[in-house]
Amino acid sequence: MGCGVTAPLHPDVEPLAFLLGTWSGEGRCEHPTIEHFAYDETVVFGHVGKPFLAYTQRTVRNGMPAHAEVGYLRAVGAGRIELVLAHPTGVAEIEEGTVEDGRIELRSMGVLRSSTAKDVVALERSFTVEGGVLSYEVRMAAVGLPLQHHLAAELRRVPE
Amino acid sequence: MGCGVTAPLHPDVEPLAFLLGTWSGEGRCEHPTIEHFAYDETVVFGHVGKPFLAYTQRTVRNGMPAHAEVGYLRAVGAGRIELVLAHPTGVAEIEEGTVEDGRIELRSMGVLRSSTAKDVVALERSFTVEGGVLSYEVRMAAVGLPLQHHLAAELRRVPE
Repeated sequence: MGCGVTAPLHPDVEPLAFLLGTWSGEGRCEHPTIEHFAYDETVVFGHVGKPFLAYTQRTVRNGMPAHAEVGYLRAVGAGRIELVLAHPTGVAEIEEGTVEDGRIELRSMGVLRSSTAKDVVALERSFTVEGGVLSYEVRMAAVGLPLQHHLAAELRRVPE
Repeated sequence: MGCGVTAPLHPDVEPLAFLLGTWSGEGRCEHPTIEHFAYDETVVFGHVGKPFLAYTQRTVRNGMPAHAEVGYLRAVGAGRIELVLAHPTGVAEIEEGTVEDGRIELRSMGVLRSSTAKDVVALERSFTVEGGVLSYEVRMAAVGLPLQHHLAAELRRVPE
């Protein structure tokens, strides 16, 4: 999705149009349970003319694929948005929140864990685009620890 | 994922290797709440050398994008598998089941619905590959109706 699509943007996702395209840069992972590290990241927001964006995220660490996540960012009216996500770690989640003036705030409404997944309880995310830089932060409650800073990255748009 | 990846297949996903590649063909949608219809479908299973496959599905109806879903099919040992899925309809789900002799059986372990999603309660899926044809069936419990046949398709491998 997002590759070669010629459909016009659905009017409901116009408030999210600033995200469209491919972004890459560096992120930092921090959590009390692991050693902190940096990663390279690519994020793609695409559309097919429907009232949602397709979202794909991949990271690389030490030249090897690391995390990934995929899903959809739905525009449901009046600045309300819903992020539906699948993680290869066995976690599926829905976050809901708002988009306003190029800033996105999302918070877990539910997290599903497969039988073998880690104990992720809740996630919060913010995205902003300023000066051509997409910045995000992810806060996570997991493995018995309360919601706290987990990930942050700054990504720049990759020319088409 | 699956495009240009040169990593060797993770040994845990060898029982799923028969799915790798791009498949396309026709499916049929049936449910008491809607008029039955046919759709064109493309499914891609890829990998990056980790113990899961990346799964992407898109359908087209009357020349327009229709359904889509994305996620990951995890191999967790002893023929057990876990499917983590995001739908643009506001549904996230985890299905668990088995792979044995080229046949996959999966059943919902949990379904999350966003505030604006339809009332999907449970899904079951089977996949088989026989004679070069990937066939699947999806059964769904939703909108007050019990689990019943919903989707079936037969897809053929698209040459690389």
